[in-house]
Amino acid sequence: MENIFSITEIVTAIDTIWVLVAAFLVFFMQLGFGMLEAGFTRAKNAGNILMKNLMDFCIASLGYWAVGFALMYGAGNAFMGTTFFFLNGIEETKYGVPTMAFWFFQLAFTGAAATIVAGAMAERTKFQAYLIYSLVVSIVIYPIVGYWVWGGGWLARMGYIDFAGSSVVHSVGGIAGLIGTIALGPRLGKYNSDGSTNTIPGHSLPLAMLGMFVLWFGWFGFNPGSTLSGMQSGLIARIVVNTNIAAATGAVIAMIIGWLQTKKPDIGLTINGALAGLVAITAPCAFVTLPAAFLIGAVASVIVVYGTFFLDKIRVDDPVGAVPVHALCGIWGTMAVGLFHETNGLLYGGGWRQLGVQSLGMIAIIGWVVATTSVLFFSLKYTMGLRVSAAEESIGLDYGEHAVNAYPDSKTSSLS
Amino acid sequence: MENIFSITEIVTAIDTIWVLVAAFLVFFMQLGFGMLEAGFTRAKNAGNILMKNLMDFCIASLGYWAVGFALMYGAGNAFMGTTFFFLNGIEETKYGVPTMAFWFFQLAFTGAAATIVAGAMAERTKFQAYLIYSLVVSIVIYPIVGYWVWGGGWLARMGYIDFAGSSVVHSVGGIAGLIGTIALGPRLGKYNSDGSTNTIPGHSLPLAMLGMFVLWFGWFGFNPGSTLSGMQSGLIARIVVNTNIAAATGAVIAMIIGWLQTKKPDIGLTINGALAGLVAITAPCAFVTLPAAFLIGAVASVIVVYGTFFLDKIRVDDPVGAVPVHALCGIWGTMAVGLFHETNGLLYGGGWRQLGVQSLGMIAIIGWVVATTSVLFFSLKYTMGLRVSAAEESIGLDYGEHAVNAYPDSKTSSLS
Amino acid sequence: MENIFSITEIVTAIDTIWVLVAAFLVFFMQLGFGMLEAGFTRAKNAGNILMKNLMDFCIASLGYWAVGFALMYGAGNAFMGTTFFFLNGIEETKYGVPTMAFWFFQLAFTGAAATIVAGAMAERTKFQAYLIYSLVVSIVIYPIVGYWVWGGGWLARMGYIDFAGSSVVHSVGGIAGLIGTIALGPRLGKYNSDGSTNTIPGHSLPLAMLGMFVLWFGWFGFNPGSTLSGMQSGLIARIVVNTNIAAATGAVIAMIIGWLQTKKPDIGLTINGALAGLVAITAPCAFVTLPAAFLIGAVASVIVVYGTFFLDKIRVDDPVGAVPVHALCGIWGTMAVGLFHETNGLLYGGGWRQLGVQSLGMIAIIGWVVATTSVLFFSLKYTMGLRVSAAEESIGLDYGEHAVNAYPDSKTSSLS
Repeated sequence: MENIFSITEIVTAIDTIWVLVAAFLVFFMQLGFGMLEAGFTRAKNAGNILMKNLMDFCIASLGYWAVGFALMYGAGNAFMGTTFFFLNGIEETKYGVPTMAFWFFQLAFTGAAATIVAGAMAERTKFQAYLIYSLVVSIVIYPIVGYWVWGGGWLARMGYIDFAGSSVVHSVGGIAGLIGTIALGPRLGKYNSDGSTNTIPGHSLPLAMLGMFVLWFGWFGFNPGSTLSGMQSGLIARIVVNTNIAAATGAVIAMIIGWLQTKKPDIGLTINGALAGLVAITAPCAFVTLPAAFLIGAVASVIVVYGTFFLDKIRVDDPVGAVPVHALCGIWGTMAVGLFHETNGLLYGGGWRQLGVQSLGMIAIIGWVVATTSVLFFSLKYTMGLRVSAAEESIGLDYGEHAVNAYPDSKTSSLS
Repeated sequence: MENIFSITEIVTAIDTIWVLVAAFLVFFMQLGFGMLEAGFTRAKNAGNILMKNLMDFCIASLGYWAVGFALMYGAGNAFMGTTFFFLNGIEETKYGVPTMAFWFFQLAFTGAAATIVAGAMAERTKFQAYLIYSLVVSIVIYPIVGYWVWGGGWLARMGYIDFAGSSVVHSVGGIAGLIGTIALGPRLGKYNSDGSTNTIPGHSLPLAMLGMFVLWFGWFGFNPGSTLSGMQSGLIARIVVNTNIAAATGAVIAMIIGWLQTKKPDIGLTINGALAGLVAITAPCAFVTLPAAFLIGAVASVIVVYGTFFLDKIRVDDPVGAVPVHALCGIWGTMAVGLFHETNGLLYGGGWRQLGVQSLGMIAIIGWVVATTSVLFFSLKYTMGLRVSAAEESIGLDYGEHAVNAYPDSKTSSLS
Repeated sequence: MENIFSITEIVTAIDTIWVLVAAFLVFFMQLGFGMLEAGFTRAKNAGNILMKNLMDFCIASLGYWAVGFALMYGAGNAFMGTTFFFLNGIEETKYGVPTMAFWFFQLAFTGAAATIVAGAMAERTKFQAYLIYSLVVSIVIYPIVGYWVWGGGWLARMGYIDFAGSSVVHSVGGIAGLIGTIALGPRLGKYNSDGSTNTIPGHSLPLAMLGMFVLWFGWFGFNPGSTLSGMQSGLIARIVVNTNIAAATGAVIAMIIGWLQTKKPDIGLTINGALAGLVAITAPCAFVTLPAAFLIGAVASVIVVYGTFFLDKIRVDDPVGAVPVHALCGIWGTMAVGLFHETNGLLYGGGWRQLGVQSLGMIAIIGWVVATTSVLFFSLKYTMGLRVSAAEESIGLDYGEHAVNAYPDSKTSSLS
């Protein structure tokens, strides 16, 4: 082989491989979310939640091609992009990689935002309604936030920082899930008339644990891949280490708190502690020191444990803990940028400006998602219906929505 | 570190990393096939199908080293290669990467071809017979087709195009499975004497869904890795996006068709719709536009749904749908090159020649596989026997072939 | 983009991406170990073993940051490193990659060493005791061996060779597990007073098989990644092929031996045969020919089968076979360097010196691990206690340690 390649072509190749391998890992998180959600819900709904999870990625693939990318990365005003529908007219490269590679990386993120909602609304949402809101989240609600922060919109111009999506992906998904679960109401049998709460255990801890490990693995695409360039070796390595420390710390501290609270090291809380750390470090991972990553993960685990308890107390029934993990820790991670950013952070002598911008952006994003998803979910609720019938919920959505039994060879206990 | 590396060495490193990472992903598809097949079959046969799946990769590893690679990539005539047995005498590099890296990438493909057969013949094939035919597929039947198309054989010389193996891997595996299932006959209890059919549900939808996601993930090695070079950034990105759109479209359209046909969105059909799209886009992925990839996936999903119904009608009992997914959609993907190829395709003004070559090649490959596997399976059937006894089939192959219970702690329903 | 990058920066980028992608794969082995161990143990302990597996990686993440790395790669004497606690003062790069990337790769190895112990001691170890010994293994016992061999310690200076950790990772983990299981004693009901043995089957073959495939997949990071450079294309390709052939051979030969011994192709032995081949090839993978890799895998499978039988005979109760796989085949792989090394190996005309150094090193490592873990496990045993109560063991550690049921929707048989 002759030296037929230029340095530019070599750098493009390295960047493209990096972005695509990262994108494959983020795609793989779809499996992680699916298995986590299936494991944390009952056997009678396992096929349904997995089908939702598959479908939201498929719908996102088509919708982000047709519309979502245009709104998020098209040329536009301060609010949204307005070119590149169906990828028509895209530049050949973007940020130094083929735009198609960049598109696919972004698509994988879109899928994540959409699937987070499924978890919070598990075990009672109509499949048809799911398809519709999943499409709307993928092509309108998520991409417009993405435009504000990553597409050159008003928050970007103001200096808002969310490196890999604590707010853009996780808070958006988690808050949408919160509104969805409020619109749905709690599952049958979750809360008693005397004010007490029943635990409805998920049907398979191994599936949940599998899901968590796949998510953690995929996060090594999510955060480091967000450099969009494989040439930034030192930064990439730092992001990897910060991501990992926050996750490990989140798991350890959540286990300890759970242990103190319930006298046993709770497995579900520990799994969500790891995820809480991952969500929280996602925004600040590129700008903070290792000890800061440790602290960010530790605080995230406190938030996720007490957030879970609090949501139960106010009767928000979120079967998999999507709201505390993604909404609350996504907000925390976003604010942590304002606190721990090595140059702009309040605790590093950067003053209040970054924290102020982060707060403003977070408020705007929360407002946008609450407003749009409220319209979305309540419109669905009062038209086609958002929730399955009580009879179908009792017998399970696998049978009711898909005429299938996820485990036909196993005897299951009568009430599951 | 000094600048001790030349541009050539750097390009070789990039290409090698790309090919090997892709190969790891293709290797991982072995898990995907195993879990998909286990999930779609009964609990009493789960260990057996997984053991077959493991063994065919192990046998392929040894057989492709000893013989298969020689027949597929050795120097030879128009029909087959005849050098490089046991990798003796191989060049140090091939297509710009170490030949060992190229060999491993090709081995992972061989494993895929072999394991597809296992699915169609699941739940009734003798383990010993399986080992033998798996070896023959890996070292003779598959590599010779590979030589024709990728090794410089007569189809390659004629201009036949199969970028990543819709025909070479998937049709070969699927057609071998079709002949195998015909040689075996249907499972006990599948068809009734009055002409009606019984559904025999797989024992675990979560395992099947896990398998599908792992396969989709692995396909990002299968198709983009077939560039055999990491330097072709634009082409790689295009292949990734085409692959993904075809899969997503296949799943969505299969779900819709199934919904119209059965009044419910069927999970199994949807899973196979995604796989159908993946199989079909494998041959044309490098040469078609995004809208063409969408169409290819859509047609594949129609083929897989009606193919499944049709095979059931003619009493070909293929427990996992390997024949419609791999044989039929592999053929469709191969023909799609002749239709949608951006320069040679009939619909793009390229005239009939490419479509003619694709048809001729497809006929030759079908003829070769039907002929050789008929000899293979019927020889086995009338000598050592291809099928387990009815008693063993009833009690399950896990117990009968391996003296094991895949789930000893679970109570299972009596007839599973 | 201008040609703003130097060749050195490009090579650093390639090396960093290679090391990190490999590290992600090694991290993913954590899932493989977890699923393998869960599958090979009973349903009533599935959550507990997975929680241990998660926790040992989390603890290693924190402990290897604080102390372990300092002992293993700090500047020091012949015995251990003494700088870089909490990564303070680390150089910016090490072996041509950012030290943070190198650290993360090494952390993933630490997690593997720690989790191997969990398997041997499964189904009866107190969770609290587990947390403590897991920490000690991660921050003292393993890193000091690592320093001897990879950190510039006395074995490195002597010319001891262990390319990717047959001894450093696998023997250390396996021997620690052996001492742990001796300290614990066998599980209730494993051995009868008349000298006979009961088989206690694992609760899920599919989970075990999933674990094995994930481990095999992850090994493509473990061994080839240990080049620590992506620029060594030929060497990397060779390592991949050797790794794969040893695994495949191990599985095939273990299946055959098991078949001859038990009249059936045993699935559990075959799984462990593949792992045995992987463990054994880990030390010599960079220095041996393909036929040697075949032989190394074949011998490993003999060792693992007869080792399993032998351990059962002497009443060492190792539920998942961690001792034969990791301790015995780790030792074998280390000695195989002395036999098959292409220049230094006894069988390749290199004389006895390398074999002697390997033997000496192996003896030292065994001595170190036996001594330290004996102190560790027996201290725990006679203070806080190492083993759960008989009542808790009977009811299962999931309930006893975590107040949880891994599969609450499934009816399980009474004695599992």
